[in-house]
Amino acid sequence: MKQEKIVLTGDRPTGKLHIGHYVGSLRRRVELQNSGQFDKIFIFEADAQALTDNIDNPEKVRQNVIEVALDYLACGIDPAKSTIFIQSQIPELCELSFYFMDLVSVSRLQRNPTVKTEIQMRNFEASIPVGFFTYPISQAADITAFKATTVPVGEDQEPMLEQAREIVRRFNYIYGDTLVEPNILLPENAACLRLPGTDGKAKMSKSLGNCIYLSDSADEVEKKIRTMYTDPNHLKVSDPGQVEGNTVFTYLDAFSRPEHFGRYLPDYADLEELKAHYRRGGLGDVKVKKFLAAVMQEELEPIRQRRKEFEQDIPAVYEMLKKGCEAARAVAADTLSEVRKAMKINYFDDEALIAEQAARFSGK
Amino acid sequence: MKQEKIVLTGDRPTGKLHIGHYVGSLRRRVELQNSGQFDKIFIFEADAQALTDNIDNPEKVRQNVIEVALDYLACGIDPAKSTIFIQSQIPELCELSFYFMDLVSVSRLQRNPTVKTEIQMRNFEASIPVGFFTYPISQAADITAFKATTVPVGEDQEPMLEQAREIVRRFNYIYGDTLVEPNILLPENAACLRLPGTDGKAKMSKSLGNCIYLSDSADEVEKKIRTMYTDPNHLKVSDPGQVEGNTVFTYLDAFSRPEHFGRYLPDYADLEELKAHYRRGGLGDVKVKKFLAAVMQEELEPIRQRRKEFEQDIPAVYEMLKKGCEAARAVAADTLSEVRKAMKINYFDDEALIAEQAARFSGK
Repeated sequence: MKQEKIVLTGDRPTGKLHIGHYVGSLRRRVELQNSGQFDKIFIFEADAQALTDNIDNPEKVRQNVIEVALDYLACGIDPAKSTIFIQSQIPELCELSFYFMDLVSVSRLQRNPTVKTEIQMRNFEASIPVGFFTYPISQAADITAFKATTVPVGEDQEPMLEQAREIVRRFNYIYGDTLVEPNILLPENAACLRLPGTDGKAKMSKSLGNCIYLSDSADEVEKKIRTMYTDPNHLKVSDPGQVEGNTVFTYLDAFSRPEHFGRYLPDYADLEELKAHYRRGGLGDVKVKKFLAAVMQEELEPIRQRRKEFEQDIPAVYEMLKKGCEAARAVAADTLSEVRKAMKINYFDDEALIAEQAARFSGK
Repeated sequence: MKQEKIVLTGDRPTGKLHIGHYVGSLRRRVELQNSGQFDKIFIFEADAQALTDNIDNPEKVRQNVIEVALDYLACGIDPAKSTIFIQSQIPELCELSFYFMDLVSVSRLQRNPTVKTEIQMRNFEASIPVGFFTYPISQAADITAFKATTVPVGEDQEPMLEQAREIVRRFNYIYGDTLVEPNILLPENAACLRLPGTDGKAKMSKSLGNCIYLSDSADEVEKKIRTMYTDPNHLKVSDPGQVEGNTVFTYLDAFSRPEHFGRYLPDYADLEELKAHYRRGGLGDVKVKKFLAAVMQEELEPIRQRRKEFEQDIPAVYEMLKKGCEAARAVAADTLSEVRKAMKINYFDDEALIAEQAARFSGK
């Protein structure tokens, strides 16, 4: 039997999604979904994982489950083609995590570079919640419960995938071929890996107020672009400017396509010409920002419109999520059934076991 | 509403149960079961926990599930009064563990003295499986899923209970009153705390061949008592003997009752008189061992007989376990439903949430 090609990916529902999520993963997911190259696509909201460092704020997670679902639908994730589900609604993932914990040592987790970085980022230091410490195991469960072959994530997630593959190999070695090793699918466009905030800071974050959200109105987007960080030394239009580290150009790298120039800035053939002019001086920030705004509005306007439409019927969005959870749960339950059989803890389904034990005692 | 009194206790199914289990816990459980003082009694086989350090030998665990069930029934655990279940068949326990992991820090687990000792005992050192490291959390889930108030275990397990209480307090503080704090119920008879092996070694173990099993035949029990370790300096009958550290007397502490003397050794009023004679010399090991054998056979014979009867219908024992699992699962599922509600991850059951979100978006 030919192995199915199965995509799994997701987000933590800790806030509305912004254009960093969009260019970094959402846009690509929609392409993968519509490419016809995959047999199944699973996209999930990692609420249980979000709770690992938001235990005292479940309301935040709960409010954002619907926001992220709306963002998904708005971007073109289509429930008819992709199964959208919520992690906490699939208890099989906890069960699989539980058994995977026997296959990984404490020291192996401590060596995981992604865990090391995340622990620093979150200022946990001495007091790391166990649920956070073990999240590579939980991620391996998320991936393998759906027999995902393809996980589209950034390069920084490679250690997580490696941990998942190790667990799969160990499980299959001990209990026989059951689970599937996942592969990473890296982004094609380097500029999309991590979009900076509108203030030029490396990370977009709600608390810094430097994000453009997919749900922002056209006016909000205009305004955020108008005040965007550029080259602080580019004071007069005539000054030579720098495009590296200049947020407006980084955003253009991620959003602009050659056809945009014909439409909105016909004096330039492409982004390289625009950059060259900026570098040698004589091109003002206002003009570049107006172009960026035109380019981004063109891409964001249909997303905003679709989001508005879905917002009209919130119960229908919950219903879609519920159906997705049911479909995902059925798949995970099938995998768990195979896992339990392989681990020989399927006592009551196994008539051979009962017969064998009965024979053993009657032979005494 | 008056709080129910609920007992929870269990064993790892890694071998047939021996008289150490019997005097240390099984005999007491039957008393508790028949005392009428408890509203519910749950007794479980911790197969998932047994797998944490037997991952590569699931067959061992699987074979012993039926042995332990037979030992339970043989001792007088009555499925009509106590719910006997198997840990792995209650996936809710994994789910609860998963959420509890967010409430405990890695350093808190590292400080758990029972974990420290067990890690040494099992020679894990640098390579502790995560599932073993986190087992206090898993135990807390086992206890709290059934809202157990009373956990009859040895004093060495007090740190585990303390961890469970900490988790309950933390959960209830964050999410509101949901779970119940368990209390330890210590053994009444110090001699029963830990019965030594027949060779005098502190620990009974299959690999040392120093156990008397509940399923041993009368001949096997006779033989094991005949070769039992006594006082190595008590060479002639006339020599003074030592009763401390003398296995035969330790076993008599655990098994003999005053009425046994009338029946089997009428020259002595009680155990104190027998010990006094042994201490001053003139009492041979053979005579004491014969008495011990009579006492033990009296207690073990009905257990053996009942075991034989239950062995005649193994499928019925599996059926009893299956029913117990179903009953236990229903209780755990109720608790999990409360837990999910408290944690606000019950998105689809919560009509108020859906209405509130719909209002939020229509108000925009």
